[in-house]
Amino acid sequence: MNVFIEPIGKLINEFTKLPGVGAKTAQRYAYKVINMSEEEAAEFAESILNAKKKVRYCKICGNFTDKDVCDICSVRDSSVICVVKEPKDVLAMEKAHEFNGVYHVLHGTISPMDGIGPNDIRIKELLSRVSGKTVKEVIMATNPDVEGEATAMYISSLLKPLGIKVSRLAHGIPMGSELEYADEVTISRALIDRKEI
Amino acid sequence: MNVFIEPIGKLINEFTKLPGVGAKTAQRYAYKVINMSEEEAAEFAESILNAKKKVRYCKICGNFTDKDVCDICSVRDSSVICVVKEPKDVLAMEKAHEFNGVYHVLHGTISPMDGIGPNDIRIKELLSRVSGKTVKEVIMATNPDVEGEATAMYISSLLKPLGIKVSRLAHGIPMGSELEYADEVTISRALIDRKEI
Repeated sequence: MNVFIEPIGKLINEFTKLPGVGAKTAQRYAYKVINMSEEEAAEFAESILNAKKKVRYCKICGNFTDKDVCDICSVRDSSVICVVKEPKDVLAMEKAHEFNGVYHVLHGTISPMDGIGPNDIRIKELLSRVSGKTVKEVIMATNPDVEGEATAMYISSLLKPLGIKVSRLAHGIPMGSELEYADEVTISRALIDRKEI
Repeated sequence: MNVFIEPIGKLINEFTKLPGVGAKTAQRYAYKVINMSEEEAAEFAESILNAKKKVRYCKICGNFTDKDVCDICSVRDSSVICVVKEPKDVLAMEKAHEFNGVYHVLHGTISPMDGIGPNDIRIKELLSRVSGKTVKEVIMATNPDVEGEATAMYISSLLKPLGIKVSRLAHGIPMGSELEYADEVTISRALIDRKEI
């Protein structure tokens, strides 16, 4: 005899598809759903379908939007473009409330090991965005890992000949942290990139 | 400007209703949903609606089921009834593979502080179950907290005059744990309930 009846087992199985959710957590979620009112459960299910149906990519920057062109692309300074790997990186940048330009989401980084080449990510879209327009600067904000660095270098090598200033987010000791706990790579990078004060 | 577009914000909000899910986790879940295929998302939404629609309470024991009478009530030895607080406690008991009787889910425990009296939980259903039938034993498996103990005592006081044997799950040092880490209440209970070997 199965421990779970079919509809509960199925729902638990669906919840385990979410990142970091194991059997036990999925079970707690499923029991919560069963204890919801009909309306709450319907609203939950609807919001999943809606997110999937309404959310698409901005045709300019590639970030998530429910319009043709996203809110950021339609109102902000388009002469500075910040290039990120994924839509969630846009969120991370926005939280800093420091950047007033627009974004370009690559939807990946160059990774020969995984068979992802320059043509598999949105690099040509970036090139056509900058060609003929008054783009003053492109800020590379890909992650500071091997793929992110390589992608930043590659894109930089394509943009510089076009006379566009390309910069990279600074790397160093995180604010509010302690030197003692910083890893060697971060410390050595912070040393190399030290600034006169 | 809102950080999230409406359909994503709504989905994140729905996910935060799940137990232990904060804004950050909900965001990860929402992004996962957006990256699902149409079919996967539809299946996920469907399983929520289905669980809510198909799952009801067994009319005998009160556990979750998708039939009139649950699989446990329909095939197992109904002369021994294990009384638990919630449906998830049935699961916990079943995992032990030790019990071959049936269950009775109270859907709560007596808790005057929260305004929950004997009539607010499924006690009269238990009484009508045992009256006139050949019930040999009722095992009280409510939690070992104040409410669980009080509920066990109360139900026991109702059943004993009917000539039904009432027992309580043993409490003591958990198997596989170390004495050093057991709390005082557990140790004192284990001492009082010690068994000759």
